[in-house]
Amino acid sequence: MFPEWVVQPCPGVSAVHQDAARVRQAELTKPAGALGRLETLAIELAGLQHADRPRAERASILIFAGDHGIAAQGVSAYPQEVTIAMLANFANGGAAISVLARALGASLEVIDVGTLAEAPLPGIVTDKPRRGSRNFSAEPALEPAELAFAFEAGRRAVARAAASIPDLLILGEMGIGNTTAAAAVAAALLAVGAGSVAGRGTGLDAAGRAQKVRIIDAALRHHDLTTPDGLAKPGVTPVKILCAVGGLEIAAIAGAIIAAAQRRIPVLVDGFIVSVAALAAVRLNAACRPYLIFAHRSAEQGHRLVLEALEARPLLDLDLRLGEGSGAAVALPILRLACALHNDMATFAEAAVPGRSG
Amino acid sequence: MFPEWVVQPCPGVSAVHQDAARVRQAELTKPAGALGRLETLAIELAGLQHADRPRAERASILIFAGDHGIAAQGVSAYPQEVTIAMLANFANGGAAISVLARALGASLEVIDVGTLAEAPLPGIVTDKPRRGSRNFSAEPALEPAELAFAFEAGRRAVARAAASIPDLLILGEMGIGNTTAAAAVAAALLAVGAGSVAGRGTGLDAAGRAQKVRIIDAALRHHDLTTPDGLAKPGVTPVKILCAVGGLEIAAIAGAIIAAAQRRIPVLVDGFIVSVAALAAVRLNAACRPYLIFAHRSAEQGHRLVLEALEARPLLDLDLRLGEGSGAAVALPILRLACALHNDMATFAEAAVPGRSG
Repeated sequence: MFPEWVVQPCPGVSAVHQDAARVRQAELTKPAGALGRLETLAIELAGLQHADRPRAERASILIFAGDHGIAAQGVSAYPQEVTIAMLANFANGGAAISVLARALGASLEVIDVGTLAEAPLPGIVTDKPRRGSRNFSAEPALEPAELAFAFEAGRRAVARAAASIPDLLILGEMGIGNTTAAAAVAAALLAVGAGSVAGRGTGLDAAGRAQKVRIIDAALRHHDLTTPDGLAKPGVTPVKILCAVGGLEIAAIAGAIIAAAQRRIPVLVDGFIVSVAALAAVRLNAACRPYLIFAHRSAEQGHRLVLEALEARPLLDLDLRLGEGSGAAVALPILRLACALHNDMATFAEAAVPGRSG
Repeated sequence: MFPEWVVQPCPGVSAVHQDAARVRQAELTKPAGALGRLETLAIELAGLQHADRPRAERASILIFAGDHGIAAQGVSAYPQEVTIAMLANFANGGAAISVLARALGASLEVIDVGTLAEAPLPGIVTDKPRRGSRNFSAEPALEPAELAFAFEAGRRAVARAAASIPDLLILGEMGIGNTTAAAAVAAALLAVGAGSVAGRGTGLDAAGRAQKVRIIDAALRHHDLTTPDGLAKPGVTPVKILCAVGGLEIAAIAGAIIAAAQRRIPVLVDGFIVSVAALAAVRLNAACRPYLIFAHRSAEQGHRLVLEALEARPLLDLDLRLGEGSGAAVALPILRLACALHNDMATFAEAAVPGRSG
């Protein structure tokens, strides 16, 4: 029933290209290791891209948008209409990710995989199984067929992006209420209480956050996702969790991550919500993990635990908590410069610079 | 005797422009504060540039190079000839900073303010009072007139760069042995033992680092810069410290920082050595401090203490320890994207996006 491709293998990393990149880094005119993570990034990309000269010039940004029934519980500081209003802002070029895409020369596609919009929005790809998820306080957020549709929508978006042969993908999200759904998914996947992963989202106060934690913890019990002590329950799969408390854009991103890895396209992972989708993707298909490059540590509480579970060390820590793929976009120049240094610096031999003493 | 301009005032930050930038940030289509440090950077630049729309497009990179008599004590993993060889590599476009300057569309000028080169090197500006500093284990590194010359060389470089109306400057350095001179200056300015600020430089082993620490501690005593307990001594000025254990490129960078601030040009500060020069500059003229934006936390031990003394929180932490202004160059896109977001995002009113609930 659940799409078979989701668990099919992803190509392996090329150890030959990684080794060659490591050798080249040691020959460039700098002390060994002096470029720190810029060196390891270039080596990593060379292995993922099976390339002597890794690249991060051609970046495709895919933003998945969905609405959340749980918003009815008052879990967001902003009204639900903001989701659709922001899609228009994306299309009109006024949102943060629109500005960043222009500044970076990256393509930007926004996919409505489940907002409340009744008709297709101009400038937005519409590919959704239903309008919004259900309120998971009362019922499962998604039927299995709806979840499967969202995974397919993620895969279709990657297939469209792949036509322009991108060096990497940036995945982002928009959806009022989606930090609540993401925190619920993370709590269930990690078998922790909501207090460890639910943050203030777009700007809840302390009381609002406490209510959000109570709503999620109650839903975890209601859907039988954790034991009464908050421990993992045997038989609770990522698919069950995503149906119970997930969201359409979170599912689409998980699908997009697996589809990108299967096509050997690295993914620059944004903040909390995309990281939770990545955690679900890795639980479904661990072979996608090497394709994930973590862009930044979000200011959203809960990102830390999710990053730890993924053994991820993000590149940036700039107190960002906007979403929209914005943190990943801000990290893109780091990858580009890492590639430029790897590809264009002179070697000690070329530059006739003496090496280490003795 | 010491140049009078060094202690002359720097223009103040414009509170009017900072306040206007803060108001604008609150109106942009994102939750308040969701862009974290990108917001504060844009506000800071607006205040420094006295501008409604801050900019970081036009960047001038100035690299100051010098040799160090202390290299004779075996404090570097690389032979002293590397300084001059690397200048040729800068000029030929093969060094890390050359690659970064091209990738970023930034101008690059390399100034020999004191290498051992006997004749001017092609593609390099020569502006030096002597060839190399003296070995500070035995004698003061610089005469006061030589130090003053280096400060003037820094100021002259800023004057040349200012002709192209840069939005900001990136200052960097090259000089085998200069982490030893910088650590000695830092230890004296901060009144700490060398063990707290001397690191492995370009790649010393543990024994090499221990020897470097002993050499610096002995020099601090020899030049009477700290008390026998390693405490600050009354009357030990930054000028005395820079003459005793400094270096020509360190002095030139300190001069360049003050000259840039006096011209109201922000400076993106690189790693350990530039930060030590910045600390000396701030001790000489505290009014330059607001113009300093700290790019990254170097992997070089000792940077932490210097950053703390400057109350600096750098933007990046990528284990870089190359110098050449490379870490500052890697941070430049962060500033550019912060400006793009500030200047080009739509406001809630423009985009007709609803604001917070309630």
